[in-house]
Amino acid sequence: MPTIDINSDLGESFGAWSMGDDAAMLDVVTSANVACGFHAGDPAGILRTLKAAAAKNVTIGAHVAYPDKVGFGRRNMDLASDELTADVIYQIGALQGLAKAAGTCVRYVKPHGALYNTIAHDRRQALAVIEAIRAIDANLILVALAGSSLIELARNEGLQCIAEAFADRAYTPQGTLVSRREPGAVLHDPKLVAQRMLRLVEDGTIEAIDGSLARIQADSICVHGDSPAAVEMARELRRVLEQANMSLQPFAGSRP
Amino acid sequence: MPTIDINSDLGESFGAWSMGDDAAMLDVVTSANVACGFHAGDPAGILRTLKAAAAKNVTIGAHVAYPDKVGFGRRNMDLASDELTADVIYQIGALQGLAKAAGTCVRYVKPHGALYNTIAHDRRQALAVIEAIRAIDANLILVALAGSSLIELARNEGLQCIAEAFADRAYTPQGTLVSRREPGAVLHDPKLVAQRMLRLVEDGTIEAIDGSLARIQADSICVHGDSPAAVEMARELRRVLEQANMSLQPFAGSRP
Amino acid sequence: MPTIDINSDLGESFGAWSMGDDAAMLDVVTSANVACGFHAGDPAGILRTLKAAAAKNVTIGAHVAYPDKVGFGRRNMDLASDELTADVIYQIGALQGLAKAAGTCVRYVKPHGALYNTIAHDRRQALAVIEAIRAIDANLILVALAGSSLIELARNEGLQCIAEAFADRAYTPQGTLVSRREPGAVLHDPKLVAQRMLRLVEDGTIEAIDGSLARIQADSICVHGDSPAAVEMARELRRVLEQANMSLQPFAGSRP
Amino acid sequence: MPTIDINSDLGESFGAWSMGDDAAMLDVVTSANVACGFHAGDPAGILRTLKAAAAKNVTIGAHVAYPDKVGFGRRNMDLASDELTADVIYQIGALQGLAKAAGTCVRYVKPHGALYNTIAHDRRQALAVIEAIRAIDANLILVALAGSSLIELARNEGLQCIAEAFADRAYTPQGTLVSRREPGAVLHDPKLVAQRMLRLVEDGTIEAIDGSLARIQADSICVHGDSPAAVEMARELRRVLEQANMSLQPFAGSRP
Repeated sequence: MPTIDINSDLGESFGAWSMGDDAAMLDVVTSANVACGFHAGDPAGILRTLKAAAAKNVTIGAHVAYPDKVGFGRRNMDLASDELTADVIYQIGALQGLAKAAGTCVRYVKPHGALYNTIAHDRRQALAVIEAIRAIDANLILVALAGSSLIELARNEGLQCIAEAFADRAYTPQGTLVSRREPGAVLHDPKLVAQRMLRLVEDGTIEAIDGSLARIQADSICVHGDSPAAVEMARELRRVLEQANMSLQPFAGSRP
Repeated sequence: MPTIDINSDLGESFGAWSMGDDAAMLDVVTSANVACGFHAGDPAGILRTLKAAAAKNVTIGAHVAYPDKVGFGRRNMDLASDELTADVIYQIGALQGLAKAAGTCVRYVKPHGALYNTIAHDRRQALAVIEAIRAIDANLILVALAGSSLIELARNEGLQCIAEAFADRAYTPQGTLVSRREPGAVLHDPKLVAQRMLRLVEDGTIEAIDGSLARIQADSICVHGDSPAAVEMARELRRVLEQANMSLQPFAGSRP
Repeated sequence: MPTIDINSDLGESFGAWSMGDDAAMLDVVTSANVACGFHAGDPAGILRTLKAAAAKNVTIGAHVAYPDKVGFGRRNMDLASDELTADVIYQIGALQGLAKAAGTCVRYVKPHGALYNTIAHDRRQALAVIEAIRAIDANLILVALAGSSLIELARNEGLQCIAEAFADRAYTPQGTLVSRREPGAVLHDPKLVAQRMLRLVEDGTIEAIDGSLARIQADSICVHGDSPAAVEMARELRRVLEQANMSLQPFAGSRP
Repeated sequence: MPTIDINSDLGESFGAWSMGDDAAMLDVVTSANVACGFHAGDPAGILRTLKAAAAKNVTIGAHVAYPDKVGFGRRNMDLASDELTADVIYQIGALQGLAKAAGTCVRYVKPHGALYNTIAHDRRQALAVIEAIRAIDANLILVALAGSSLIELARNEGLQCIAEAFADRAYTPQGTLVSRREPGAVLHDPKLVAQRMLRLVEDGTIEAIDGSLARIQADSICVHGDSPAAVEMARELRRVLEQANMSLQPFAGSRP
């Protein structure tokens, strides 16, 4: 029976501003990428999310980002390597502290937004992130884009690294993401999305945008929860995977 | 042979702005209160300070503060208790992460600036800070103003709490600080300051501003390093204490 | 025919986080208190709100606040007078710049949140805000809580100052706001709220929480738009005032 | 008699952190590029600098930057065009407000750090900055790197644009800056620097790093004041230019 993890970005509210439906998503996911205060999340809100995740036995990852709150971590920033390494350590440490207070712990690291996209191909920044993880806790697992060169790089540097697929994104025949600028890059039909992910878990294949079959190795599926439609899609995905008797388990193990 | 600790605020540079002479002060102090990024300190700079402190076997404390960088944490802020608790946990956790990367660890917590002054008497905010420390690591020692009600409160709540005196400040006959608004509140003569602190360590007494002797229980002496004159005063204090064969030791023990 | 203004807080989104329904509220209000980036609002979002306000001929005020984004400007902060004055000038100037780019201009200043509440009674901070307005443009009108001592103070200092009532709040027999901590302090029935405000505009009176009639002098009514229910209440208020042939006009005149 | 302007970056302190010697530099420069709060400068400190500049009749420019205080605006950031335009308008407006309070006014705009370097060649970001200036005040003069394509672009878009040379930098035979990564890129000898700039003002030429003569059109010379040596170099430059009877005048005219 194949095993799969479902992850999503949580804890992204900030002060008086709310984002996403963390309570709903904690019933869907097995792993929560929790904001660390650089692109989103304030300490009190992060702590509430961590306590809710702990109560539902959802595994915690540090969703580290560039220091750019107004840009939500989505804008490329050219940080020096030592700055990036220290920024990532700081964020993981802060989340570890809050996780301990919530009775849980941080098990993995998933870079966010522009940092995620950049280190999928930028070796210098990738090494700075890897260095950060090794410096604070070499047992933390790095989550990377399926098919990216980051995976091999991180493993060569001694880190555990797992690959993730995106439920609502179209793929090229080569198993890479279709750029958001292309038509059809983002999928909106919950049933279609769920069926695609079921095939991915069962066969390791996904229908590419040209109709061919692409092969993707992924241990986790990323879903979104930032709109009611996104929550609905995530729920449908979980329902279909459960109905097919897939084993939903956090890739990083259950806490603690 | 009496034992005493000397502490100072370090890691207070921020990005392109430098503050204090951390390298010089690490030769003087036994304990370093390291900024955590809320009133001062950026991750890369904090990490450099932690590495330098580790190299000199200086014990590390988390210098937690209100989230007010432009005000340097010196302005009172009316945070809700859950906000303050989470803010303190976040800062301690972030510093723990960086400390681990630097090969050292956080052994105590010293609130900074307005937060320090407020919790010396404000029970609600004091309890919020105490709750934070208990939630992340109940073995962390809280540093409090000698003579303040915070000490008993923290101990009643199960924390270790130690008292500190300020080398460059005048005291009232009751053993409390003379307000900075009063004439003579701040002392500038390094030799006088050193002699006063030597008596404090030897006898537990200090000459109050009216000439009487005040009794103060303090396990640590706070010195400043934010100007060449301040560094000179700190050096003189250490020289005099060593000459009198006082044992200079971090109250929280040497790192690990 | 009595004249009345309706104002509301707009432009309070921040980066990826949205707040309120600015488009809907611009059909209800005659004056828009636009965030200036200290408690809420990023430049691009503020500019969009200003352009939308200009298109609907809504008059613009600067919604100045303490520098506390994570606390949404709702937490008391003890700023020095020169800091507060400069912070307020900076915010007004920034909004004036964006308003010019949007083809409109800033006509009044309404302090936000904790600053609003503090200067209703704190003379030092009130004078710092007044000084700011006089320094940048003495023709800007200050909006103050009806019945507060700020009104007379500002007028004595040479500023135009107008009073505002809060549509959804209960009042004491003395014409002051019932504290939010008291039961019944916040009203939720749109029809009741609209009738109360109609009487206020027609008679200058409002039914106090004890059933007596309180006398309130107010030139503007503050409504909220931060939830669908709040928008509905604001719409009902406008509908009732228009039906009663009240003249809805911005107290500060139409732009420009 | 040739006319030349000397400009420098001022107002770059932030809260408790000081940077540069604004008082000394105001005796040297004819134009002050004043920080606007995004890479440096807090409102109270900016206001103090503006008042000091006004007292010495120094002309004011807005030193606009990316929103990156911890990186001092020196790190490339990939802002969307509408974000960049609004950020620049916001900063200029804020400085205009503070300048009015200081009895002076903003006459020009000089982008800072990474933004300065980027728009010297990046057409998209350059147009976003130009659009900002046109939207808030088309009479503001843009300061650009001598020899950069920005100058023609800005003029084609209807802006006045002047070119500046850097006193302490080596130039290529083509009249562009030698990269800081190359040996000899930064000059340290005050007398040499002053003689080079005198020739530039008199002849429009500068000795390039290979010994050849490069032709540079520049209306202003940028000097630094962030160290005692930098201040000394700036003073020597002014002394030499005055001795040679060059007319030192702000390119943007005297205030107001």
